[in-house]
Amino acid sequence: MLSKNQIKLIGKLKQKKHRQDSNLFVVEGIKAIKELLNSPFKLYHLYTTESFYIGETLETVISESDLKRISFLTTPNQALAIFEMPEVKAINSNKLCVALDNVRDPGNLGTIIRLCDWFGIEDLICNTGTVDCFNPKVVQATMGSITRVNISYLNLESYLTDTDLPVFGAFMDGDNVYKADLPEKGILVMGNEANGVAPEIEQVITNKIAIPRFGQLQATESLNVATATSILLSEFKRRSIEM
Amino acid sequence: MLSKNQIKLIGKLKQKKHRQDSNLFVVEGIKAIKELLNSPFKLYHLYTTESFYIGETLETVISESDLKRISFLTTPNQALAIFEMPEVKAINSNKLCVALDNVRDPGNLGTIIRLCDWFGIEDLICNTGTVDCFNPKVVQATMGSITRVNISYLNLESYLTDTDLPVFGAFMDGDNVYKADLPEKGILVMGNEANGVAPEIEQVITNKIAIPRFGQLQATESLNVATATSILLSEFKRRSIEM
Repeated sequence: MLSKNQIKLIGKLKQKKHRQDSNLFVVEGIKAIKELLNSPFKLYHLYTTESFYIGETLETVISESDLKRISFLTTPNQALAIFEMPEVKAINSNKLCVALDNVRDPGNLGTIIRLCDWFGIEDLICNTGTVDCFNPKVVQATMGSITRVNISYLNLESYLTDTDLPVFGAFMDGDNVYKADLPEKGILVMGNEANGVAPEIEQVITNKIAIPRFGQLQATESLNVATATSILLSEFKRRSIEM
Repeated sequence: MLSKNQIKLIGKLKQKKHRQDSNLFVVEGIKAIKELLNSPFKLYHLYTTESFYIGETLETVISESDLKRISFLTTPNQALAIFEMPEVKAINSNKLCVALDNVRDPGNLGTIIRLCDWFGIEDLICNTGTVDCFNPKVVQATMGSITRVNISYLNLESYLTDTDLPVFGAFMDGDNVYKADLPEKGILVMGNEANGVAPEIEQVITNKIAIPRFGQLQATESLNVATATSILLSEFKRRSIEM
């Protein structure tokens, strides 16, 4: 059985403000929930339909129709869990990290978190205009990777101004990334879906790089931010193998 | 003014069967429509709201509420056009091409078409289980790239059995792509989002490759099919620059 207060709490967690006030966020689906249960993330409460009961202390069995009532998905997926947000750790500036400037699309942020995990990037730095990583659509898209990447929201301009590391950014007129020097330590900045990197961030970028376009020159639109990130991270990491 | 027949025709074009019967498909939004008008694709009819009238012969000005009636989008975007499907050209087997086995997500197919365009891949080969490239969500996601990539739907297993080209596929246990021999001519096969490449397709793959994982080994989920395609195409094309 669900109490009115439980329903109200879950509903509120759709909004960033309430997630931040309560330090809680929602994950849906048995597969994603299991990934989070097997991580250092702390469970706050788990709601499962009978056939998916997994025996957690903080678990309540609910009916399909109750799950439908609390789920954020159009097709609810067997279970819904509330987790506590992890403590954000200090950024490890001894490695390559990724920084995002106003990335707005939850799917793109989720894909980039998954890419960071794949490529062993420990730290993802987001400006405060970037979509919240505990947005339910982002959490869903990360497929559990959110538990393995340390995500810091901060004033990106001042962070980049203060760092001693080389700051890389993708620009149409940058140096060919396949031929550029790519160090093991640095920050790779990726910009907004429509506008790219903001002018004040561009000013603090020390190394402009570009992914060469092989198609008909005048025609092709720029690459999507998530696919551009995947190509650039692949290129940075390839070099570290070859060294 | 919209006639009942016009409304009926547009509604039918949501379905693959009707698109194939009529050889027509729908594009929405001024930006995407302009890309298609500037391509060899033939306009069948254009519906625009007054402020976006562009003076085509086959253009009808309609009201916002009429646009809302015919649009497939929740937020209609100033114009809707019907175009004729292009003629599919013979596959140019003298270059690298990409083949898809049961890619189902329209966003993924759209992103892959855009990547093919960026990397100068002329031919995209899809098995018949792959989502239709004239699905409105795919057309939208390609950002005009659909006009610059020749997309063939065919029996992929027999096509790959008959080809003399090396057939590459991404597998967890494949050779490290950064160190593998990657020729200028070949076929890169990408599989279904959940199940990868089907067993009968796997049998005709001559070169298994893998994108090395740099994160904590046991944990990271596989990469999304579109990001994996971007990394592999980048790697194939980088070699061609260096030769």
